[in-house]
Amino acid sequence: MSDFSADGHPAASLDPVAADAVVARARFAADGLLPAIIQSVDDDAVLMLGYMNAEALRRTLTEGRVTFWSRSRGEYWRKGDTSGHIQLVRELALDCDADALLVRVHQVGPACHTGARRCFDVDPVIVSETEAPA
Amino acid sequence: MSDFSADGHPAASLDPVAADAVVARARFAADGLLPAIIQSVDDDAVLMLGYMNAEALRRTLTEGRVTFWSRSRGEYWRKGDTSGHIQLVRELALDCDADALLVRVHQVGPACHTGARRCFDVDPVIVSETEAPA
Repeated sequence: MSDFSADGHPAASLDPVAADAVVARARFAADGLLPAIIQSVDDDAVLMLGYMNAEALRRTLTEGRVTFWSRSRGEYWRKGDTSGHIQLVRELALDCDADALLVRVHQVGPACHTGARRCFDVDPVIVSETEAPA
Repeated sequence: MSDFSADGHPAASLDPVAADAVVARARFAADGLLPAIIQSVDDDAVLMLGYMNAEALRRTLTEGRVTFWSRSRGEYWRKGDTSGHIQLVRELALDCDADALLVRVHQVGPACHTGARRCFDVDPVIVSETEAPA
C-alpha cells in the first residue's frame, strides 16, 4: 500500500498484483458493473453512488483516485478530471458477498454535478424532524 | 408524514398517495430494481446495499420499515422479519437523477447476515493507517 498526497490529504492505493486479486474477487453483475457507494471520510456523509467495471475498479485501486464507468456516456470517468472535484481513496471494502463496494474518500469540492455537496441533497423524500430519543 | 415507535425509536413514513408519487419519480433500472444504500442514522455507518423494486419501495415508504427485493431468492424481504434485526426509516432521499436511494435508518442489531454489524466489515481491501493531516 502506498500513499501519495494531493490537496494535503493522503490517498491509499494497491500495487497491480494486489489490485488484480481484488478485481478477481469482486462479483460484477450481468452487465459487468459493480455499484460503488462513495462516502466522505471527513464527516461520513454518503456523497453518491457510481458504477465500476473491472478496469475502473483496477484503476481506482492502483491510482488511489476514484474512476467510474459512466453508463450514460459509455466511457471511463475519473472523477474530477473535468471539474477538479476529485475523490482520493482513503478506505475501500467489498461487502459480504463481494457484489457492492464502499469507498471512503476525501472529496475535493462538491461531489454532485448539480453543484450540491451530495447527490442525495437534491431530492429529499423523508426528512427527520427530530433527533431520536436516547 | 407519520411516526410510530419501535425499540424506543421513531420511524418515518408517507401516506399512500405521497408514496406513489415517489415511486413514480424513481428511475428503476432495466431489471426493475433501484439500489438502496442503508446508512445508520445513529453513527452514519454505511451498513449495506440492497435493491428495491417499485412495490418494495412503496412498502418501505408507507410502513417506515425497510423492505428489499431479494435478487437471490426472488421474493420480498422485509429486513428483520426472520432475524429481528429490523431497519426503521428515519430519512430517505433519491439522488440527483432519481436512480439511487439513500435510506437512513435506526438499525436494530447487526445489519449483515454474517452477524457483522455492517456488510462492509467482512472484506476490507484498503484500510486507513493514519488520520489525514490537518
